[in-house]
Amino acid sequence: MRLITVNATVTASNDRDAEALRNRLTEKGTLLVNVMSAAGSGKTTLLSRIIRDMPEMKIGVMEADIASDVDAKTIEALGAEAIQVHTSGMCHMDAGMTAAAVDAMEGHADLLFLENVGNLICPAEYDTGAHLNMMLLSVPEGDDKPLKYPLMFQKSGALVITKTDALPYFTFDLDRCVERAKKLNPAVNVFPVSAKTGEGMEALEAYLRAETQKLSAKEF
Amino acid sequence: MRLITVNATVTASNDRDAEALRNRLTEKGTLLVNVMSAAGSGKTTLLSRIIRDMPEMKIGVMEADIASDVDAKTIEALGAEAIQVHTSGMCHMDAGMTAAAVDAMEGHADLLFLENVGNLICPAEYDTGAHLNMMLLSVPEGDDKPLKYPLMFQKSGALVITKTDALPYFTFDLDRCVERAKKLNPAVNVFPVSAKTGEGMEALEAYLRAETQKLSAKEF
Repeated sequence: MRLITVNATVTASNDRDAEALRNRLTEKGTLLVNVMSAAGSGKTTLLSRIIRDMPEMKIGVMEADIASDVDAKTIEALGAEAIQVHTSGMCHMDAGMTAAAVDAMEGHADLLFLENVGNLICPAEYDTGAHLNMMLLSVPEGDDKPLKYPLMFQKSGALVITKTDALPYFTFDLDRCVERAKKLNPAVNVFPVSAKTGEGMEALEAYLRAETQKLSAKEF
Repeated sequence: MRLITVNATVTASNDRDAEALRNRLTEKGTLLVNVMSAAGSGKTTLLSRIIRDMPEMKIGVMEADIASDVDAKTIEALGAEAIQVHTSGMCHMDAGMTAAAVDAMEGHADLLFLENVGNLICPAEYDTGAHLNMMLLSVPEGDDKPLKYPLMFQKSGALVITKTDALPYFTFDLDRCVERAKKLNPAVNVFPVSAKTGEGMEALEAYLRAETQKLSAKEF
């Protein structure tokens, strides 16, 4: 397990850096998915399940955190390439930081996940160079989150509602949550899943396969 | 319900502003508690329970969010004074922003809560002028959070572990979590609670009463 420490790049040039990274990854045939959520929504658990369920894909994971390397170790134990990225205290990843992390990956990945810092605010403000922004909202967090963190919902192509196995124990109205998210972002693809029971994982994985196939057709 | 919008003050002078605000509130006999956690840890639900359980105290709440006013409306419905503070997209409150919010409160409060923006990272970096930092970690978020967000645990005088009624449904090791938190902050006061069932609330409320009484003795 390797650890790299990155510093924030100047934000003015971020969009240009993001576009360059996206193009470079498209050429290499690597779909980059920027995974964002609050702390504790189950990003690592979801990615672990995806890696186990999709052995036909070469999957890599870049774990961004302020401290610790527990998530990268979890992913590495599944046999996928993982690197830990420390953000020097920054609450988000930007395109330059992401490019540095991509360059630190050794093998080829068809599907490369950036597990962004756990935070519903700052990560939404930076284009990381990913082809797809995938946000997670877990059932215990509550169905009001689209009202409070609108930018994150607006910037995400996929909304994964995690921990649906916990629906009986929390007052979370799935329909109301989806309605609120679609009001902010009518085109968002919604996937309610439980990485624990596997419920809903098939639809999410079919979507990720289809997005990866778009790359060969250069649709990004 | 009033809404104020604040902008970040220069951070260099933040500590001085924080100290001035703390002294001013001590003189007024108002204990300011800065409540921090990730999004969806149950800050508003906990404060609602405290307001209902402690009718003998004059309690006020300043709700900081990037958008929406759902939390302030929830608090106001309980009969406590509440204001909504919009942070102009900022992921935290600083001392100047907090002072502006305090000035917008109309009545006297013995116990004034600042419900900070839902975020385990940025709010920990700013002294808001509060007498006490109280962080929440909910059971569904996982017991590994002290490893990943150490500064928040270091800066908090009280750690409230919320949603303990969900312990049977999640793999959350309470002892391990407390051990990790105390390694970062040996003096932290830990309160496992369920605002839903009321379990553990009495100890937390006794602690808040005692902290408020310290003010008259000018122990801050």
